Amino acid sequence: MRTSIATVCLSGTLDEKFVAAKEAGFDGVEIFEPDLVASPHSPEAIRARAQELGLTLDLYQPFRDFEGVGPDLLEQNLRRAEAKFTLMNRLGIDTMLLCSNVATARSGDEQLAAAQLRQLGDLAERYGVRVAYEALAWGRFVDSYEVAARIVRLADHPRIGVCLDSFHILSKGHNPEAIETIPAEKIFFVQMADAPLLSMDVLSWSRHHRLFPGEGGFALGAFMGHLVRTGYDGPVSLEIFNDTFRQSDPRDTAIDARRSLRWLEHETAIWLGGSGGRAARMSTAALPAVAPPSDVNYVELRTDAIDQMRDLLTQLGFRAHGRHRTKSVELWSQGAARMVLGRPETDRHQPTVAGMGLSVRDPEAALRRATDLLAPRVYRVEDPDDETLVGVRAPDGSEVFFGAESAGEPGWVREFGPPAGGDAAHIECVDHINLAQPWQHFDAGVLFLHSVLDLHTQPSMEVAAPVGLVRSQVLASADGVLRVALNLVPSAADADAILPQHIAFAASDVLALARAARDRGFRPLDIPTNYYDDIQARFDIAPELLADLQELNVMYDRDESGEFLHFYTHPIGTVFLEVVERRDDYAGYGALNAPVRLAAQYQQRRDAPEGVPA
Amino acid sequence: MRTSIATVCLSGTLDEKFVAAKEAGFDGVEIFEPDLVASPHSPEAIRARAQELGLTLDLYQPFRDFEGVGPDLLEQNLRRAEAKFTLMNRLGIDTMLLCSNVATARSGDEQLAAAQLRQLGDLAERYGVRVAYEALAWGRFVDSYEVAARIVRLADHPRIGVCLDSFHILSKGHNPEAIETIPAEKIFFVQMADAPLLSMDVLSWSRHHRLFPGEGGFALGAFMGHLVRTGYDGPVSLEIFNDTFRQSDPRDTAIDARRSLRWLEHETAIWLGGSGGRAARMSTAALPAVAPPSDVNYVELRTDAIDQMRDLLTQLGFRAHGRHRTKSVELWSQGAARMVLGRPETDRHQPTVAGMGLSVRDPEAALRRATDLLAPRVYRVEDPDDETLVGVRAPDGSEVFFGAESAGEPGWVREFGPPAGGDAAHIECVDHINLAQPWQHFDAGVLFLHSVLDLHTQPSMEVAAPVGLVRSQVLASADGVLRVALNLVPSAADADAILPQHIAFAASDVLALARAARDRGFRPLDIPTNYYDDIQARFDIAPELLADLQELNVMYDRDESGEFLHFYTHPIGTVFLEVVERRDDYAGYGALNAPVRLAAQYQQRRDAPEGVPA
Repeated sequence: MRTSIATVCLSGTLDEKFVAAKEAGFDGVEIFEPDLVASPHSPEAIRARAQELGLTLDLYQPFRDFEGVGPDLLEQNLRRAEAKFTLMNRLGIDTMLLCSNVATARSGDEQLAAAQLRQLGDLAERYGVRVAYEALAWGRFVDSYEVAARIVRLADHPRIGVCLDSFHILSKGHNPEAIETIPAEKIFFVQMADAPLLSMDVLSWSRHHRLFPGEGGFALGAFMGHLVRTGYDGPVSLEIFNDTFRQSDPRDTAIDARRSLRWLEHETAIWLGGSGGRAARMSTAALPAVAPPSDVNYVELRTDAIDQMRDLLTQLGFRAHGRHRTKSVELWSQGAARMVLGRPETDRHQPTVAGMGLSVRDPEAALRRATDLLAPRVYRVEDPDDETLVGVRAPDGSEVFFGAESAGEPGWVREFGPPAGGDAAHIECVDHINLAQPWQHFDAGVLFLHSVLDLHTQPSMEVAAPVGLVRSQVLASADGVLRVALNLVPSAADADAILPQHIAFAASDVLALARAARDRGFRPLDIPTNYYDDIQARFDIAPELLADLQELNVMYDRDESGEFLHFYTHPIGTVFLEVVERRDDYAGYGALNAPVRLAAQYQQRRDAPEGVPA
Repeated sequence: MRTSIATVCLSGTLDEKFVAAKEAGFDGVEIFEPDLVASPHSPEAIRARAQELGLTLDLYQPFRDFEGVGPDLLEQNLRRAEAKFTLMNRLGIDTMLLCSNVATARSGDEQLAAAQLRQLGDLAERYGVRVAYEALAWGRFVDSYEVAARIVRLADHPRIGVCLDSFHILSKGHNPEAIETIPAEKIFFVQMADAPLLSMDVLSWSRHHRLFPGEGGFALGAFMGHLVRTGYDGPVSLEIFNDTFRQSDPRDTAIDARRSLRWLEHETAIWLGGSGGRAARMSTAALPAVAPPSDVNYVELRTDAIDQMRDLLTQLGFRAHGRHRTKSVELWSQGAARMVLGRPETDRHQPTVAGMGLSVRDPEAALRRATDLLAPRVYRVEDPDDETLVGVRAPDGSEVFFGAESAGEPGWVREFGPPAGGDAAHIECVDHINLAQPWQHFDAGVLFLHSVLDLHTQPSMEVAAPVGLVRSQVLASADGVLRVALNLVPSAADADAILPQHIAFAASDVLALARAARDRGFRPLDIPTNYYDDIQARFDIAPELLADLQELNVMYDRDESGEFLHFYTHPIGTVFLEVVERRDDYAGYGALNAPVRLAAQYQQRRDAPEGVPA
């Protein structure tokens, strides 16, 4: 698959965009006209720079409001087009994007549009360029790719073809199947965009909310499958208008973008079932298959408040294994929940939840899939007799390590000292991991977990915090063993202040654990009495249970599948812990309780800015 | 008018919300249930705190999904309601908001709903409270206030009335005229919200994009007029779900909110034409009338780069008048354009465009209107023989001073020395003022200019900068003498870095001025050659004019009304200047040129981070 990206997807100067695209591994770029107009470099210098970087210039875009006009305007439009063809010759670009007329078309007569496109084709012929006609979803008369393709057929000119853009087709709910009826040689260009499934005017949706493939809700594997079946083998390009990407580091965005196309290639291969049909000329290699992780092997925390965290883990019943035999980290465990604890490394920014280890059937295959998806490798310093763990870095800077499955305790546990004391084992394993994401990395974080770890998104939610709404997106493996919630901090807020990271553990009896912890000096996050009055009104809870919950600051939820009991610790630095008990088949996260927890944390910072109240 | 505000409008703890509402002058608050549930204080303590502050608790909200259900669920719902009535008794709140059923209604039978509301009314009677039934715009069966009012009439219970919310009515395009058919004693509560006129699903629109009255596009004066005519004289309350307000300082938001209700009262008085009709019991005093300013008297800049600014003003043909006779500011003028220049004051944050002076017919009336609208007064230190200027502070911290109109030069000019040299007078006056607004103050800035200065919004635009989209909103006086553009900086970006403030001056011959300035050593912002190729393609400009534009780095626009020529200076610190020439009736601002200017500024910072290139 030849890959390309429109310069409008990336922030910065045109040169910064080129460098970012190149470094992420794109084959080419589309020149978005405003980027050219604003550049201090001549078209010839821009062409030379692209050549120097080894990038092809695949498309000049957009040209607007050409067809369906009266004779006077047609003349002006041909003059405008000629100026752009001249410019394209200077840039060495052979294809121009023509959007269907939005503003000046007086007629939807397809014969008229075709005749005018034919004239444009003749002009393009003289400059050795060609025109890719695209139906905008909000075109005045032409707003469907099937109509655009029909007009191109009527124009019947070798320099006139279509451009297919997945957003314009799927946002209108049009069926992409008919792509297969378009001859491959008439498909001059393809732009891929994903988007969340929003109900809003399509122009605003398109201009602000597009996403890279795999980050939204469109069925893009099928779309590409139909395209591959035509025999198309031109560039597959990204044209993503997104308010966040416009503000982000272009190097990060470009890697996210390139990953999305690798994922798309895989999805296409899956949809095609390994065979693209007789016409397929585009390679669509699937990613290495990986089975879902069999458990969360460990979670690694990096915090300066290490003594406070030791106290807390002790109170919750974790056992200390002591330090790693060669490294300054220590291990704490309870049941199959393992916490690797250390101070932050000084040479780079490191999130507090610095990493997670996953047990997988084939660690090398998991690594190959991850690096195939452009995840940067990270290395564990290992002695010859240490267990081998292989790892990559996520967009937020945290690390994911893969280790081999084992019948009992993982081998690397022996690299630490033996555990002190017996295992209380109220806590059984990690239930889920909550990662607050900087606003710039949220969508990239979703794509990383979805593509690299094959996690799937659950419906997203918004949770009201006292200083803004938090968008929360859970991704889970097929069997629910690995559940990660990404929380998007309001862009204006200080992430650490309003939304610490957190790890939730699963316990068999949360009330017993809370009581045992209290006996060891644990003080949970205070939950207001008003909350218990409210859940009593909502759920009509048995008085004894309600008294237990309130006494132990345990929160409660119930749905048709079961019950959920959970409590929170006070934040230690920028992380806190949660313990949950799922009764029957409860599969949620106590969403209605989250605002109360956030308010309690906010109140605590007001009352005791230094940390845990005395 | 009795004013109230829902706690959900404001950020922080419940107590922080109370204090903010009180300080802004609200009479009461609505308790939004999640704020109560998350509060560590008992209902009795919350009631006492409100009493201590002198705030009434006007409404408990929301109660959901009550009516139109089967018998089992009805019983549960009555149990839920009883718990809330008990709580309301503890809080001392007598009215509960009931939203029309979204989730559990099985039937839209109005008789059934009315019968169930009657049962709820009997229960409310026992607790001495009443229920205000509101049709949500997305109610399952009841989504119009006329249907809700009909059900309430059928219920025929003294404890059951309606709540009218302008958002739910106007977002659906429903005509508010029929409000006049509802008996005043059946209107238990009124919530006012404005909103931008968006085309999106009404639930998302409501939950994220509501605005305070005067900040959006709804005709709220008429809405309130119909309400006043019923004889309603209960609280007029604000219930605004807005992603930005949730993240802002609650004290600022509360003042913005209270101002919006004062503006709404004025609009209502205007709509009613001074007479509310026979039934009117609510006072709706109009604001002091003000005529539009006759000119922009001066603009005040505060910058540490004062020498660079002096050089720049000299190059542009401004004359130095020397220092103020008692203060450390100096005056520069050309034609009727006057710049007061000084260093930043040290005791507070001050925007670079620190203030503007406006000539008005009656400065005291203008001041009364402003302070009536909660604008905080600011004072100019004046000697006995100084001219009196009266002023207020805008939400962004800049100051607006009003001075008396004068036939010739304003009197305060004599407080400075005489001007040096003759007046080149290429520049005639201030054309418009561009104020970059921090994201938290944008909507409040719009309301301030609209209500205090009686400016009116022109269609808003989005301009692509290399590091994000900038939303730009122009507000202008009726005759266009005062034009202010508010630019909303992307929330994640550093405002100064991407979008300096700027002042645009009107010149009679911008090319002559640019040439004269160049002869005095002026170097304009460099505009790329590619830009001139592009405008040539777009406008087919005469070659001589194009050569002049390009030589002098002057930009160009044309529309059906006329032509626009303009150039920019390099930024001096966090401000830059623009000179514009409007030919014929061109009334725009060269919108298509703005992205090129932003890119050129970005490029310049890349090339010469220290300021003007050598």
